[in-house]
Amino acid sequence: MPGLTQARVVQIERDILATNDNHAADNRARFAAAGTFVLNLVSSPGSGKTTLLVKTITDLKDQHPIAVIEGDQQTANDAQRIRATGAPAIQINTGKGCHLDAHMVGHALDQLPPARDGLLFIENVGNLVCPAAFDLGEAHKVVVLSITEGEDKPLKYPHMFAAADLLLLNKIDLLPHLDFDLAATIEYARRVNPKIEVLTVSAKSGEGMPAFYAWIAKRAAAARAAAKAAE
Amino acid sequence: MPGLTQARVVQIERDILATNDNHAADNRARFAAAGTFVLNLVSSPGSGKTTLLVKTITDLKDQHPIAVIEGDQQTANDAQRIRATGAPAIQINTGKGCHLDAHMVGHALDQLPPARDGLLFIENVGNLVCPAAFDLGEAHKVVVLSITEGEDKPLKYPHMFAAADLLLLNKIDLLPHLDFDLAATIEYARRVNPKIEVLTVSAKSGEGMPAFYAWIAKRAAAARAAAKAAE
Repeated sequence: MPGLTQARVVQIERDILATNDNHAADNRARFAAAGTFVLNLVSSPGSGKTTLLVKTITDLKDQHPIAVIEGDQQTANDAQRIRATGAPAIQINTGKGCHLDAHMVGHALDQLPPARDGLLFIENVGNLVCPAAFDLGEAHKVVVLSITEGEDKPLKYPHMFAAADLLLLNKIDLLPHLDFDLAATIEYARRVNPKIEVLTVSAKSGEGMPAFYAWIAKRAAAARAAAKAAE
Repeated sequence: MPGLTQARVVQIERDILATNDNHAADNRARFAAAGTFVLNLVSSPGSGKTTLLVKTITDLKDQHPIAVIEGDQQTANDAQRIRATGAPAIQINTGKGCHLDAHMVGHALDQLPPARDGLLFIENVGNLVCPAAFDLGEAHKVVVLSITEGEDKPLKYPHMFAAADLLLLNKIDLLPHLDFDLAATIEYARRVNPKIEVLTVSAKSGEGMPAFYAWIAKRAAAARAAAKAAE
């Protein structure tokens, strides 16, 4: 590579990640002070993240203040879908970029500060590779995999499944129409991340969503309690 | 960004792309000399690229020598599925990388030289963002979109749809079970790329595949004729 050694590229990647981690720590401190519980939703394009968020907001908005930060290369479609639920949403367009970074999220927080005892969902750019490396300051990464995508994705994209604490297997309503081996998929996910939790859901039919809400409620209560204790 | 200006990052991206383009030109010269017709298949994870290739190879292997270069972060699953058809396949694992580059493909060609008057399919890493920027020396990028992924993907990931010459809308057999607007999807694809050709297919049922084979046959014949004329 003329004028650009592999070692130099690796050094630059390290610098970028170190800078990101500084911004992520700032975001995390803001979330902790407010008692805001934050999930970073990652997946391929079309796994159903936005539909899942619309359903979640509709079902939980009477219990918590909820806000959303949306990441896409282009369009504000997703933020518009979220705002139709009544929840505030900020759209970040990454242009040629393949992931959100903590600095972009920090700017979004300047416009949409963390709500006291609230929930914040960050919907990352649809991409099973790049967002894995970037901490945004979230409590957990949640990887959404549509069952139309095939069983072997955890093995083929292991960094993302290793980085996530929860796997949502979405579009479970389509199971009768597909050749899809649910048990094998879960086994592959646990092979790359033995601690990953797994829930099967259909954001469209609502099946399995209460278990996701219970998962959130338990962790959000702990975030609120920690913020109160630190006052 | 301490020690790393935005201008410096942009300059490095330019250097990487210029280096890639040199390798892509070398690959393209090797393909042209052999009369090998090369497609670079790009999509999200799980759009059905490998199933589409298995079906295509099964149906066309008596007419042309066919080979495949497979790109994934991890595993040799896809190359194994291809080899089960009898076609040779090389697996490239990109590790943390989100796309193939022309240099990796050049190394694969050292192991699997372009066949005289053959077809070569390059299955890129499942990612709708990063592979758009990297020319591998192919004749055409073909973007595969499963109809389970939703209509708005061409607008949200415009660089990939702008870079492709053909859009294959796959899994059309699932249309009765989905809320999916085919006409809107095609309209969005043409909005970002007015020249893109569109075919609807099901690699599983075989529906629409003959039109894809006819699309290939016409262009592969031109590649063979050009190689013969240059002798």
